[in-house]
Amino acid sequence: MTATSERPQLEKATFIMLVRNSELHDARSSIRYVEDRFNKNFHYPWLFLNDKPFSPEFIHMTRSLVSGNATYGRIPKDAWSMPDWVDRQKARECMRAMATKNILYGGSESYRHMCRFFSGFLWRHELLADYDYYWRVEPNTQLYCDLTYDPFTFMRENNKTYGFVINLLEFPSTIESLWPTVQNFSREHPEYIHPNNALDFIVDDNKNITEGGYNNCHFWSNFEIASLKFWRSQAYREFFDFLDRTGNFYYERWGDAPVHSIAASIMLDKDEIHWFYDIGYRHHPFTHCPEPKLEFHDSGRCYCNPTQNFDRDPYACTKQYRRMRGDLGVPGRVPGVLEQPVLNRIDRGKGANGLRSKLKMSTEGLELMPGDKGAAQLLKIEDGRE
Amino acid sequence: MTATSERPQLEKATFIMLVRNSELHDARSSIRYVEDRFNKNFHYPWLFLNDKPFSPEFIHMTRSLVSGNATYGRIPKDAWSMPDWVDRQKARECMRAMATKNILYGGSESYRHMCRFFSGFLWRHELLADYDYYWRVEPNTQLYCDLTYDPFTFMRENNKTYGFVINLLEFPSTIESLWPTVQNFSREHPEYIHPNNALDFIVDDNKNITEGGYNNCHFWSNFEIASLKFWRSQAYREFFDFLDRTGNFYYERWGDAPVHSIAASIMLDKDEIHWFYDIGYRHHPFTHCPEPKLEFHDSGRCYCNPTQNFDRDPYACTKQYRRMRGDLGVPGRVPGVLEQPVLNRIDRGKGANGLRSKLKMSTEGLELMPGDKGAAQLLKIEDGRE
Repeated sequence: MTATSERPQLEKATFIMLVRNSELHDARSSIRYVEDRFNKNFHYPWLFLNDKPFSPEFIHMTRSLVSGNATYGRIPKDAWSMPDWVDRQKARECMRAMATKNILYGGSESYRHMCRFFSGFLWRHELLADYDYYWRVEPNTQLYCDLTYDPFTFMRENNKTYGFVINLLEFPSTIESLWPTVQNFSREHPEYIHPNNALDFIVDDNKNITEGGYNNCHFWSNFEIASLKFWRSQAYREFFDFLDRTGNFYYERWGDAPVHSIAASIMLDKDEIHWFYDIGYRHHPFTHCPEPKLEFHDSGRCYCNPTQNFDRDPYACTKQYRRMRGDLGVPGRVPGVLEQPVLNRIDRGKGANGLRSKLKMSTEGLELMPGDKGAAQLLKIEDGRE
Repeated sequence: MTATSERPQLEKATFIMLVRNSELHDARSSIRYVEDRFNKNFHYPWLFLNDKPFSPEFIHMTRSLVSGNATYGRIPKDAWSMPDWVDRQKARECMRAMATKNILYGGSESYRHMCRFFSGFLWRHELLADYDYYWRVEPNTQLYCDLTYDPFTFMRENNKTYGFVINLLEFPSTIESLWPTVQNFSREHPEYIHPNNALDFIVDDNKNITEGGYNNCHFWSNFEIASLKFWRSQAYREFFDFLDRTGNFYYERWGDAPVHSIAASIMLDKDEIHWFYDIGYRHHPFTHCPEPKLEFHDSGRCYCNPTQNFDRDPYACTKQYRRMRGDLGVPGRVPGVLEQPVLNRIDRGKGANGLRSKLKMSTEGLELMPGDKGAAQLLKIEDGRE
C-alpha cells in the first residue's frame, strides 16, 4: 500500500454481462443501478460478452457509464453452438415440440446456447482467466439497496463460493431428465458429493440423492456472485461434461440456474452458499426486497417496496432454504439475514428476541406448490433472448 | 463564506412533492432518482405536502432517503375543496357526464382539487414562504441524466421563471371554456400581457390572443422548475382568481398544466421560459431523452434510450416551441439545447455546422395532429390520483 492509495484494495473480481447489441439500453440501465448502489465507490471492472462483435455504439454508450475498466469480449464458436454429439435433427424436433407446448423459451436455440454457456463455458473464457470471482449482471435488472461493503471480499473472507438473491421453482418440463442424470453422476462419483452439502434445499423428506426426487428449487442465476474456482474444479468440470454428453441442454432445455444450483447444493459445503439477503434486486417479474424496516428502510439504505418481496411467494423456495439452513426451529427468523455483515450495525441491545420482533417475519404463506401450471402463469417473463 | 464551508451556496429553493401515504414507494423511487442524479451533491431540502396527515411510516421511509432537510406539510382545507361559489350539485353532474365520456380523470373530484391547488395555492403555502424557486417532483418519475450544475442558480442567473422538460397537447374536452376565459381576461387586463410573450407557442398562424384559438400545447407540469415570484405576482393572482371564479376547475376539469402554460406564455417574456433539454425524464407514458450522442450518451451523462425521446412524437409540441423560439429557420437545431450551459463543455471547434452535424437532428415526424381522439389513445395514464 502506498500513501497515495485511497482506493479500497480490490479482489480479483469483475462484473460480467452477457448481452446483445440490441439490448444496449437495457444494459445501460443495469449498469447505472450497479454503479449507483455499489460500484461507484469500488470501481470493479466490467466484462461484456457477446456471441457477435459489439458495435462501436454499444461500446461508446456503455464504457462511459462504468467507473471501472470495461472490456468487450467475443464468445468462441464452440461455446455457443451444439457440440458434435448432439443430433441436430432430433434437437430441432424437440424444440418444435416444446414450443408447441408453450414451454418458456422451449423453441429457442440461442436460449439453449446461453444456458450451456453459463453452465460450462463462462468460467473458461480467456478474459476471465485472471479473476477469482464474478458478479453476473443481466440487462434490465434493478438494484434497490446501497451496498456499502465489498461482496467479493465478503465471499473470500467468509469462504463463500456461491451467492444468490432469489430462489424459486424451476419448470419441471424443461429439465425432465436432469435429476436422473445427476443421480447417475453421484453414483459414479460419490467422491464429489460433499458430506455437509445443501441437499436439503433441493430434495425433500430428508432423502439422499439416489432415493430423493428433485423439488425444483434453484437459485435464480441471472444474479450470481460466485467463485470461479468452483466451476473450474475437477469436480464441477466432470459434472458439466457428464450433463453435456447427454445432449439435453438441447433436447430438453436445461437451464444454467438448476445446473448451477444442483452442483452447488451437492458438491459444496452448505456454508459456502450465501444468500445476499441485503441486496434488493429486481429481474422482471420478481423482486427481492429486504423486509426489516429499521435496518433496510428507515435507514435510507433501500427504496424498494418490502411488501413486494418475492421471498414470501409460494413459488419461492424460502421454506426449503430455511430448512437446509436449519432455521425452521426458529420462528420468525429470516434466513440469510443473520449471516449478514450488515447485522453488525443493528442495535443488538435487545438480543435475539428483540431482533426477531424487529424482523416481524412469519412463516405464513410459505407452503409449497410445485409444478409447472401455476408457476407458468406466474412467470410471465416478457423479455428474453430469441 | 467560512473556510470550513465546502457545500455549494444554495438558492432559496426546495423540491416539492404532493403525495399520499399510499404512494410511499412511488415517492421513494422518485427521491432516489433525484438524489442520485443531482441532489446528493447539492442537498436541497424536500417539502412533502398532503391533504391528510403523513403517516410515521411515510416520514421514516422518506426522510432517510433525502440528503437535504425533509419537511412534511398539510394542505389547508380551503386549498383542497370547492370554493363557496361552486354549485356542488352542478359540479357533481358535470363530473358524472365527463366520466361517462371516458375523459381522463373526468369523474375525479380530488384530481380537480389537485389541479386547482397547483394553479392557485401551492405558492401561498406557508411552508414555501421562504423560497424563491421550487422543483416539482411527482411520485413514480425517473431522471436519467447527471445534472452537474445547479438548475436553481441557472434560473436565477439567467432570469428564467418557468422551466419544463416535456411539452404536449392537452385534451380539449377538459378545458372547453379555458381559452375564452383567458381571452376575456386579456381584454380586461391588457397591462398583464407581455409584449415579448410566448404566444406563438400556444396560438397558431401568428394571431393575437383575441383572434387566435388555443392549439392545446402546454408544458407537462408534473415536472416544473419555477420561480415562485411569478405565481405570487399581482398579474398571476388576478389571472388565477379570474379563472377560479368561473368554477370551471370543477365544472370542467382544467389542469394546472394548461393554466400554468398559458399564464407563462402570455405574461412572461418568452426568454423567461426554459426548456431543460438536458434533463432526461420519464413520467409514464412519456420519456424525454436528450438525443445528441456525443454530449449526452458517449459522455456517460445519460442512460435513457434517445430513440424513445417523446419530443419527436406527433403529440409533442416541439414544432410549436421551436416556432416560438424562432428556431424554425435553422434546420436540425434542437430547441432549448442551445440555451444550455452544458453546451459550454461541447467542443466548439467546428462551429455551428459541426454542432448541427453532431446533433443529427431532423424535423421529420414533427407534423401536428391536434385533438382528443388520438391523444386519448396515446395517453393511457394508468396510475393517477383518485
